[in-house]
Amino acid sequence: MSDKIPITMKDIARELGVSVATVSRALKDSPRISASQKKRIQAYAKERNFYPNVIGEALRHSRIQPMKVIGVIVPEFVHYYFMSVLSGIEEEARARGYRVMVAQSNERYDKEVAICDSFYKNKVCGIIVSQAKDTKQYDHFRKLMDNGVPLVFYDRICTGVNGSRVVVDDYMGAYTAVTHLIDTGCKRIAFYGSPMNLELSKNRYNGYHDALAKHGLKEHEGFVKLCDNRAQAEAITPEILSLPEGERPDAFFAINDDTAIGILYTAKHMGFRIPTDISICGFTNSDRAKASDPMLTTVEQRGIAVGEEAANILIGQVEGSIPKDEVELRVVRTRLVIRGTTR
Amino acid sequence: MSDKIPITMKDIARELGVSVATVSRALKDSPRISASQKKRIQAYAKERNFYPNVIGEALRHSRIQPMKVIGVIVPEFVHYYFMSVLSGIEEEARARGYRVMVAQSNERYDKEVAICDSFYKNKVCGIIVSQAKDTKQYDHFRKLMDNGVPLVFYDRICTGVNGSRVVVDDYMGAYTAVTHLIDTGCKRIAFYGSPMNLELSKNRYNGYHDALAKHGLKEHEGFVKLCDNRAQAEAITPEILSLPEGERPDAFFAINDDTAIGILYTAKHMGFRIPTDISICGFTNSDRAKASDPMLTTVEQRGIAVGEEAANILIGQVEGSIPKDEVELRVVRTRLVIRGTTR
Repeated sequence: MSDKIPITMKDIARELGVSVATVSRALKDSPRISASQKKRIQAYAKERNFYPNVIGEALRHSRIQPMKVIGVIVPEFVHYYFMSVLSGIEEEARARGYRVMVAQSNERYDKEVAICDSFYKNKVCGIIVSQAKDTKQYDHFRKLMDNGVPLVFYDRICTGVNGSRVVVDDYMGAYTAVTHLIDTGCKRIAFYGSPMNLELSKNRYNGYHDALAKHGLKEHEGFVKLCDNRAQAEAITPEILSLPEGERPDAFFAINDDTAIGILYTAKHMGFRIPTDISICGFTNSDRAKASDPMLTTVEQRGIAVGEEAANILIGQVEGSIPKDEVELRVVRTRLVIRGTTR
Repeated sequence: MSDKIPITMKDIARELGVSVATVSRALKDSPRISASQKKRIQAYAKERNFYPNVIGEALRHSRIQPMKVIGVIVPEFVHYYFMSVLSGIEEEARARGYRVMVAQSNERYDKEVAICDSFYKNKVCGIIVSQAKDTKQYDHFRKLMDNGVPLVFYDRICTGVNGSRVVVDDYMGAYTAVTHLIDTGCKRIAFYGSPMNLELSKNRYNGYHDALAKHGLKEHEGFVKLCDNRAQAEAITPEILSLPEGERPDAFFAINDDTAIGILYTAKHMGFRIPTDISICGFTNSDRAKASDPMLTTVEQRGIAVGEEAANILIGQVEGSIPKDEVELRVVRTRLVIRGTTR
C-alpha cells in the first residue's frame, strides 16, 4: 500500500464523470449498476490504489468506538512555546476523551507532507498544525480537508488554505509592550523582528508602530531591524549602541525572548546599565526569560490557552457542534509581564 | 465499554480452567467444542467485559497493516529534558515507520494509571515512560507487561517493575563535573541534590563524593543540602555564603540547571564574583543554561540520545529482535559543557 493520502470516492466520481453513489455501488459490487460501468470504476479504483475504509467498516460492526485520536504537527519539540501549546491541546483532548498523536516537521516541507500522509493512514480524526517555515505549497493540507479531516492552525497560520485557526493578539501585545516602554520614559525605541511576510511579525511591527504614533513619537531611521535570534542580535547590536547618546536607542522591543536576551547581554557587556540606560522587552515568556539577569520583561504568549482553543475547535468539528466547513478564528489575549529589564 | 485494561483470553482460560484454544473457539462460535462449554465461556466473557480484538481481525483480513504506534508518557511537556527525549523517540520511531502517541501525567499517579489504560485501549504496540513523582504502586505497569505490551523506562526508572530502561551515567557525569571544579582550584565544594531515594540523586551524590575522595578532599559538614529547584536555592544559599571566607564553599555542584541558576544569582547579588570567587556547575544543559549571565557550566544529559535508545529497545521488542521478556539496560554517556560559571 502506498503511504500517500488515497483518493476518495469523490475523486473517482469526478475523474470518471459519474456520481459518488455510482462509485459506491460499483465498489460494493452492487447489482444496481451495469456490469460495464462497474468494471470501469473498479479498474480505475484499483489502478489509483483506492481502498475502502476497512477499519471504519469493522468498527461500525463492533462494540468498539472509532478511535478518538488528534494528530498534532509541531515544527520542533524542543521549543518552549510549542510545548506549551501541546500541553494545552493534550489537557483539553484528554478531558474530552481524545488521545494525541504527535510528530515534528523539523521545519521541513517534505517531512510535513509525509506526516500528513501518515496521520491520515493512522485514521486521526483531525489535525492541529503549526506549519514548517519551509512550507510554500498547501496541497497536503487541502487533500486532508477534501478527505473530511478537519484542520486547525496555530501560531504560524497558513494563508494558502482557508482553515480554522488560533492566534494570539500580536498587535495588542506589541502595542501594550511599547506603550509600557513609553510610559516609563523611553523615547527612542528600536524594533527587532522577523520578515514581514510572516503574519505575526507584521502584526507585532504594526503594534509597535501605532504605539509610537499614538504617543507622538517617530520611528527613527535604522531602528527597525530584521533580526529574530540571539546570534543575530549579538552581531548587529554593538553598531547601533555605538551611536552617540541622543542618537542611539534607549529601548528595544524584540520579537522573541531569545533576541531580547542577545540585546540584553550585548548592552550589559558594553557597559550600559539595564534598565537605567537601556530598557528591553521580549515576546513569549519562555524559561529563558526567567533565567536571564536581570529577568526579562516580556509579552506572555499563553501557549496553553492557544492549545486548549485549538483542541476545542477541532473536537467541535469532529463531533459536529461546529460545522466542518465553517472556518473558526479565535484570538487568545497576550499579557505583559513586567520584570527587571524595563523601568 | 470500560476504560480499564480488559482481561485477555489467557485470563479467561485460567479462571475457567480450560485452554486458551478452547476459549478462542468458544468466542469464535466454533463447532469444535461442546455447546455447554461454549455457553459457559461466552457468558463469562460477557460478564467480565471481554471483547475480541475486532480491529486486529479486520486488519488481518485487509491490505492495511496494523498500526505501529508507540505510547509515550511524560511527566510534563513543558520541560526541556523531557522534550529532548520525546524528540529522540519521535525521530527514531519515524525512521522505522512508527508513530508516537503522547500524554502527560502531570506527576500524578492516578493520571498515569488512566493513561496506561487509555493507551492499551488504543492498541499501542508498546509504551515508553518516565514515571510520575507520585507513583509508588506499579500494578498498572505490570498489567501492561502481562498483556504483552512492552515497557521501556527512561530518566526516572521504576524500581518496582523489572522493565527495560535507558539512563544517563549520572555517577560519571557528577564525578567528571566535580573533578573539573577541583582541577580549576576549588577545594570546598557543596552539593545540592534531590532526596536519595531517587536513583539519579544517589548516583550523582556518589559521583560527587568519590571525586572529592579521589583527590584527598573531604566533604565538609553542612555542605550537602536537600535542594533541587531555584526557589529553594535562593532560600538556603544566603546562609551558607554568609560563613566567613575559608569556611564557606568556593564551589557548588547542583543536581539541575534551575538550582544552579538560583545559586548563581544569589551569589552574584551578594557581591561574589563568578567564577573568580565562586564556581558553579549544573546538570541538564537546558535552554536556561545559555540564558544565564554568565552562561552555566553544566553536565549535558543528552535527552535526544536517551529517546533514541528507548525507542530502539521498544521497537526491537515489538519486532522480535529483542525478546519481550528480556530486560534491556542502556546507559547514555553525559558530557561536561564548560562555560562561564567555572574557572
